[in-house]
Amino acid sequence: MHPHSYLNQSDAIALDVELFNYFGVEQLMELAGLSCASAIAEGFPESKTVLIVVGPGNNGGDGLVCARHLKMFGYCPEIFYPKRTAKTLYENLTKQCELFEIPFLTACPTTEDLNSKYSLVVDALFGFSFKAPVRKEFTEIIDNMLHMSTPCCSIDIPSGWDVENGPLDQDNSLKPAMLISLSAPKLCARFFHGIHYLGGRFIAPALATKYKLKLPNYPSTHNCVRL
Amino acid sequence: MHPHSYLNQSDAIALDVELFNYFGVEQLMELAGLSCASAIAEGFPESKTVLIVVGPGNNGGDGLVCARHLKMFGYCPEIFYPKRTAKTLYENLTKQCELFEIPFLTACPTTEDLNSKYSLVVDALFGFSFKAPVRKEFTEIIDNMLHMSTPCCSIDIPSGWDVENGPLDQDNSLKPAMLISLSAPKLCARFFHGIHYLGGRFIAPALATKYKLKLPNYPSTHNCVRL
Repeated sequence: MHPHSYLNQSDAIALDVELFNYFGVEQLMELAGLSCASAIAEGFPESKTVLIVVGPGNNGGDGLVCARHLKMFGYCPEIFYPKRTAKTLYENLTKQCELFEIPFLTACPTTEDLNSKYSLVVDALFGFSFKAPVRKEFTEIIDNMLHMSTPCCSIDIPSGWDVENGPLDQDNSLKPAMLISLSAPKLCARFFHGIHYLGGRFIAPALATKYKLKLPNYPSTHNCVRL
Repeated sequence: MHPHSYLNQSDAIALDVELFNYFGVEQLMELAGLSCASAIAEGFPESKTVLIVVGPGNNGGDGLVCARHLKMFGYCPEIFYPKRTAKTLYENLTKQCELFEIPFLTACPTTEDLNSKYSLVVDALFGFSFKAPVRKEFTEIIDNMLHMSTPCCSIDIPSGWDVENGPLDQDNSLKPAMLISLSAPKLCARFFHGIHYLGGRFIAPALATKYKLKLPNYPSTHNCVRL
């Protein structure tokens, strides 16, 4: 267990804006998604059949990148992407997954599908800029994920959780087995008690100081670290 | 020793063009430069004082990304970048290195500087689209690198080598200790006999088939593999 600090929502957004003064979104998303795939390969080395559930924003983009790297790592990922965002960034990430022959589901998987077809479901729906309520395109898949027995791995924030206060409605909140915090854990991670990784190895010391981040050292060339 | 195929110059250019139908340049450069840093960390784990010599194009961009990741890996990289390219991509990569407090040399290092100050010099000058002659901004640094005793690591192509026929003028050609081929080795790598790595793990099976590439498997989540 590495001691570390937490980001509140406004600092998470401010850090993100600041990162984009230096980096392109494609760059950060590539590193973030790659670190998610690496963390999953460490945390779930045997769970080769993975469904990545992709949301409409950056969290979803991280998921699409993660899917592509998982495929290269020998996994058999599939993607459910119910609301495609009409931006070049997301269209390219989708094309890349198609190039790597990753199947996209055409209908929302039932709870039974989630239980029988997959050994891991990756929640790449909503990130730290999420504000309730959940849009209608996502209510069915979230409901099915709430009732599945397959373990869930959330990227950055368990979708639906309050970014600072965690699972406000315990009975209707995802309970992921694994959480991959990106850049730095957000406050809601205090309420998470499973396998916790940090990814997104791109925070310069100057930014860590500015945002009072206390982060663990990544081992050697690894792009993720277990907290 | 993994058996593998080689790309000629026109196929290397065609594959690159095809990759850009799917990927953004920032994405591929990030993965390429990251794999270079990982390969250097494997091949030269003790050589912490590294000079990265950066050229004006994509090979130089790979070098800037490599420098940033080497810094995160605990190395002390410095950069010599004699001809800065006025494009947002390169300006951002430069800003990122500055954010990570990587020094940029203001004068061309002498052979004596290269020998005394650095334990490794990374040649990120020219890539597979290079055609002789070398432009005047680079003749001095190349001449000094030709006479240094510090080991050299070339990214993709030893700068100045013919992409297919290798070192045409043996007395005036770099003799790198390490070569990191990106995507796939180019034909000139047949004339290289040092530590050879492959990086740039982003070739989909469909593209490997189309370009008749025979590439080794990358181990698990590694982004580079020794050939």
